[in-house]
Amino acid sequence: MTNRFQFNINATDGRARTGVINTPKGDIRTPAFMPVGTAATVKAMMPESVRSTGADILLGNTYHLMLRPGAERVHKLGGLHKFMNWHGPILTDSGGYQVMSLTDLRKLTEEGVKFKSHIDGSVHNLTPEYSMEIQRLLGSDIVMSFDECTPFPTTQEQAKSSMDLSMRWAQRSRDAFGDRPGYALFGIQQGSTFKDMRAESAEKLTNIGFDGYAVGGLAVGEGQELMFNVLDYAPNQLPQDKPRYLMGVGKPDDIVGAVQRGIDMFDCVLPSRSGRTGQAQTRMGAINMRNSRHRDDNRPLDENCECPCCKNYSRAYLHHVHKAGEIISSMLLTWHNLHYYQILMSELRDAIASNKLDKYVSDFHEIRKRGDIEPL
Amino acid sequence: MTNRFQFNINATDGRARTGVINTPKGDIRTPAFMPVGTAATVKAMMPESVRSTGADILLGNTYHLMLRPGAERVHKLGGLHKFMNWHGPILTDSGGYQVMSLTDLRKLTEEGVKFKSHIDGSVHNLTPEYSMEIQRLLGSDIVMSFDECTPFPTTQEQAKSSMDLSMRWAQRSRDAFGDRPGYALFGIQQGSTFKDMRAESAEKLTNIGFDGYAVGGLAVGEGQELMFNVLDYAPNQLPQDKPRYLMGVGKPDDIVGAVQRGIDMFDCVLPSRSGRTGQAQTRMGAINMRNSRHRDDNRPLDENCECPCCKNYSRAYLHHVHKAGEIISSMLLTWHNLHYYQILMSELRDAIASNKLDKYVSDFHEIRKRGDIEPL
Repeated sequence: MTNRFQFNINATDGRARTGVINTPKGDIRTPAFMPVGTAATVKAMMPESVRSTGADILLGNTYHLMLRPGAERVHKLGGLHKFMNWHGPILTDSGGYQVMSLTDLRKLTEEGVKFKSHIDGSVHNLTPEYSMEIQRLLGSDIVMSFDECTPFPTTQEQAKSSMDLSMRWAQRSRDAFGDRPGYALFGIQQGSTFKDMRAESAEKLTNIGFDGYAVGGLAVGEGQELMFNVLDYAPNQLPQDKPRYLMGVGKPDDIVGAVQRGIDMFDCVLPSRSGRTGQAQTRMGAINMRNSRHRDDNRPLDENCECPCCKNYSRAYLHHVHKAGEIISSMLLTWHNLHYYQILMSELRDAIASNKLDKYVSDFHEIRKRGDIEPL
Repeated sequence: MTNRFQFNINATDGRARTGVINTPKGDIRTPAFMPVGTAATVKAMMPESVRSTGADILLGNTYHLMLRPGAERVHKLGGLHKFMNWHGPILTDSGGYQVMSLTDLRKLTEEGVKFKSHIDGSVHNLTPEYSMEIQRLLGSDIVMSFDECTPFPTTQEQAKSSMDLSMRWAQRSRDAFGDRPGYALFGIQQGSTFKDMRAESAEKLTNIGFDGYAVGGLAVGEGQELMFNVLDYAPNQLPQDKPRYLMGVGKPDDIVGAVQRGIDMFDCVLPSRSGRTGQAQTRMGAINMRNSRHRDDNRPLDENCECPCCKNYSRAYLHHVHKAGEIISSMLLTWHNLHYYQILMSELRDAIASNKLDKYVSDFHEIRKRGDIEPL
């Protein structure tokens, strides 16, 4: 354990890196996948079960938590870690992305974003300074600076104006965050799909100085090909010695491609959300448990998986409880999906450490191409 | 472990008894509370978590399981225990009670009950013989004979005619069940609130001969006072050396009163169902976690409770996740409620064993009269 926030790269393979982020709340092995605990819970999971999948860090959502139960309240109750019984590191987003998606309910100015709560219609004014304050009250270990996620598609002019605003907000976030040993502040690169603009954003952020850097404005509808195009250069524009975080990504093959391009951290609702709709994420690809072909299938979801779902239940059971609308369907599939994501990250870390990432990635795609094995 | 089904009473206190039912799947300490696993899952709980609360046996519902996923299918998949990953004993009801409550969808004859599925409208004909077959296919350890649960209120004439039908069905159930070592068949006493009719039913059942006996036709709207009036004589009309089961009961004070009157087994959806609606069952009585008085309350639900919900979470958290509609609210409150029910049963067993049941019951009511302690 350390009382400082620091990042050490242990090995590289091409542009991919594996290492460890030390925080006073525990270590984060990178590349890392952060399960999303929006409203102070990873949906359908006990936190000790999340931990048992291999997760080192969770993500919490500032927007949701500021509205309910409220950051002041969480602070008075001892902080988010105690509140939700997760004692490892927590990263919180800035609230910006989610506020921006309230199309009819928000107004953007230089100062920040005025918006109406989706819960009770109350009006709030989220600014870089207020976002820093909320994340401090929550007790977040990794704080994200407040930015505007540039929509896609966009014109070069709009992208520039949005990036410039985000860079001014990045400076205000940095100033408001101040000096908080043991806690980290991450900057967020913008610039849409424009290489020079990404470089300009990276330079501005680096000059301000952050503990880590996110590649922002991706996974917003541009598709994997265009995202990978940006990732071919964007991570390398950021400091080599700091963690790089790709927000809101993604599907397993998105993660694999992004790791190859030098990304260290990920978060996504996909494994938990898709679990609740009956979709299993596996080495073989996504499997829809609603499909009646599973009705009489006594095999586990994935016979090579060691999670409690695969060790103890048949596909027939998973199909049944999903069809019957039983909560255990969400519990088991979320558990499996989060377990699969952590296994994937662990295998990626091992592949990088042993300089076998290319082989690993080629096998990864080969297994998925073969797909799910039909019952005999 | 034994390969036989047997019941031994270890101690009595007044009319109350404590003992152990041995089954090939494990022992059941009595008085016992059986959590309800209607559709092959105790809602919002992993089976190992149910076990950890102290539950020795689960109840499964024949009506639900015959319709979905189907008894033949469960049988082909290795039986209900394997299917739902519960390896202790399972008791199944006969399906009769639930079919009877489909008011517009069923037709009662001497042969059995014809009904329409609430899931797909398909027509089924449930008879004593078919109920025995379904429960055998499921692999149920304790099979309930098929009966008509006499509605309340009723006339003496209707009650008699209903009881007579149930006794003919009890004989047909016995004949159809046959000889299955290690598995038990329970008969169900009817006779509504008429003492002589209850005696007649008990005599008929005893003459047929069962491994245990349920007091049926109670907890159907007659209220606690009238239920206790019947329990003042009905259990004693049944064989002393066999387990006595009060179906569908109940609230903690119902259970306590019924144990005092000689009941050994209970099942009820209350702890799980009320947990899903935000209601906590505690020593102090029921506590509604939806109430905003819990919003800033950092105390556990019950500071004397050792369940994971009370050890790790505040009332403020339970209030928050319930308000936010998070699945973990159902998970935590169901876990606590089932834990509380098992603690109650354990304390009742200990009180009977040490001949201190009256004192225990008087303390039980005293603590509930004081109620939940308001925060300072």
